Amino acid sequence: MDTIILTGYIAGTLTTISFVPQVLRTWKLRETKDFSLAMLLLFAAGMLLWTAYGIWINSYPIIAANVITFGLVLFLLGMKIRYR
Amino acid sequence: MDTIILTGYIAGTLTTISFVPQVLRTWKLRETKDFSLAMLLLFAAGMLLWTAYGIWINSYPIIAANVITFGLVLFLLGMKIRYR
Repeated sequence: MDTIILTGYIAGTLTTISFVPQVLRTWKLRETKDFSLAMLLLFAAGMLLWTAYGIWINSYPIIAANVITFGLVLFLLGMKIRYR
Repeated sequence: MDTIILTGYIAGTLTTISFVPQVLRTWKLRETKDFSLAMLLLFAAGMLLWTAYGIWINSYPIIAANVITFGLVLFLLGMKIRYR
């Protein structure tokens, strides 16, 4: 694996796993007041388009990172709607 | 501009502008309790690596989106440290 692809994977791993402590915190606190609903909606929509872009340019780091992050953001969105 | 690049730009615009309502909300509320510090740190680090990746694969949507988002996340990180 070359340095470029590896950097993409590390970048994707960082931005993706960053949502794990957030999901854990939100699950524990059951509070989402500080989150902007617009942010979560726009971000989730962006993740879907990034995934399409990743498929088109054939970039596995982009596809993998965005699909997993989309799932985690969807969870936060659900928590935001449930505990506003 | 072809459909692929356009999709990348729309994706980047969505994920980037998603942080604007968040920054405005955080600026107004002066509260960041619901945010995970680990999330903001990992996400900011990821943005830097995504920027490097974008430069390497010569993807302007990735570079532009990540540089701007990095700035907005840095602001949220500052607010998190200031108003924990």
